[in-house]
Amino acid sequence: MLVRTRNPLNIGAAARAMSNFGALDLRLVTPYEKAFREAVSAVGAAALLDNAQEFDSVQEAVRDCSLVVGTTAIGNRELQHELLSLETAGKKIRRKLANGRVAILFGSEKTGLSNRDLSHCHWLLRISTRVEHRSMNLAQSVAIVVYELSRGSRNAMPGAKNTLSSAAADMATLDRINEALREALNLSGYLHRRSVANAEEKLRRMLLRFDLRAADAEVLLGMLRKILWKLKSE
Amino acid sequence: MLVRTRNPLNIGAAARAMSNFGALDLRLVTPYEKAFREAVSAVGAAALLDNAQEFDSVQEAVRDCSLVVGTTAIGNRELQHELLSLETAGKKIRRKLANGRVAILFGSEKTGLSNRDLSHCHWLLRISTRVEHRSMNLAQSVAIVVYELSRGSRNAMPGAKNTLSSAAADMATLDRINEALREALNLSGYLHRRSVANAEEKLRRMLLRFDLRAADAEVLLGMLRKILWKLKSE
Repeated sequence: MLVRTRNPLNIGAAARAMSNFGALDLRLVTPYEKAFREAVSAVGAAALLDNAQEFDSVQEAVRDCSLVVGTTAIGNRELQHELLSLETAGKKIRRKLANGRVAILFGSEKTGLSNRDLSHCHWLLRISTRVEHRSMNLAQSVAIVVYELSRGSRNAMPGAKNTLSSAAADMATLDRINEALREALNLSGYLHRRSVANAEEKLRRMLLRFDLRAADAEVLLGMLRKILWKLKSE
Repeated sequence: MLVRTRNPLNIGAAARAMSNFGALDLRLVTPYEKAFREAVSAVGAAALLDNAQEFDSVQEAVRDCSLVVGTTAIGNRELQHELLSLETAGKKIRRKLANGRVAILFGSEKTGLSNRDLSHCHWLLRISTRVEHRSMNLAQSVAIVVYELSRGSRNAMPGAKNTLSSAAADMATLDRINEALREALNLSGYLHRRSVANAEEKLRRMLLRFDLRAADAEVLLGMLRKILWKLKSE
């Protein structure tokens, strides 16, 4: 819920972020600029903006909500509310969303939420920033809040498939790599006579640290064999 | 790290979000608009923008980094990288930050990262959005990523540092390994003429999957150079 937002581009950008994360109910309390629905910054969020509701007061806008949370960067204002970090707030809000509507209020770019706005809030949340630079862009704040609220709801990433087999290389292949590498190092004079003895173990430990995938191990073995063949054909 | 960003306002807004969350090292690879340092969207982030570095290529920009992560919304492109959700990625990146630099690449607003850009990445991360609306605003993506990375940073234990031996190899060393390996493969006839062209990218992706430690990378480079020397001395 955006309260007295001045810049329609911020409304559009906030709408886009909400749409990205499935928070589809945007409410606006007395925006300065009435033409916000055409904001070019709302890429992909036209439907959300079309459905956005306008209200004359916070009181009316939160009427059907069972939890109202204000956002603040905390300036000098003495807070009369409980103040939670976004991480903690996110958990409480997600629980509440299971059986009710939750309103999250963002104030104007210049002045934030007024004491009157805050009087409608159960408690406040704050995005923890550097102390030296607390002033955040409005739409970025909205984006971070809706991201945090969507947390854990999409653990399974649909459409995210790897084309590469991630199966680990088996030890037999590693042994063959080890052997080919040792032979190449021997032929090229890398291994001194006295170091040959424990080269096998050292190389194996190193190859294990590489954490090779099966496909990569085959490629590496092929390379080494070709190099070895060349070294021998001198 | 912003790659081929078109809109200077997005650079400014990304800089502001980075400054909010203490990610103070912004790098730009061939931005379209050179006047980005004056972006009005960078409220409070003038210092960060002043210190932003420009590079001609991703390769140069990531040279001193030990982990390079690409961001993607996944379109139709077939991914050749491991893809992690931001939540999982955040944990891995925070661990890595304890003993090395981590680069996070954001592509251009229109086309994202190219396959060539991606070939410099160890793995990819994705911010989980609604399937119906995946296209995010660039600066909002940056804001959400730096927010996630700052997660729990106040609980971080100072003084808990990893031993030197587990430090990751930097990209400059990987580049040298890549070069030596390519030369060896070329001399030994592993690379056919037509495959030489994209061998560099393929080898880089493979080397990145090995997740080399600094010490192992030096050893591997030493081995390759010795083999190379031998191959050349025929």
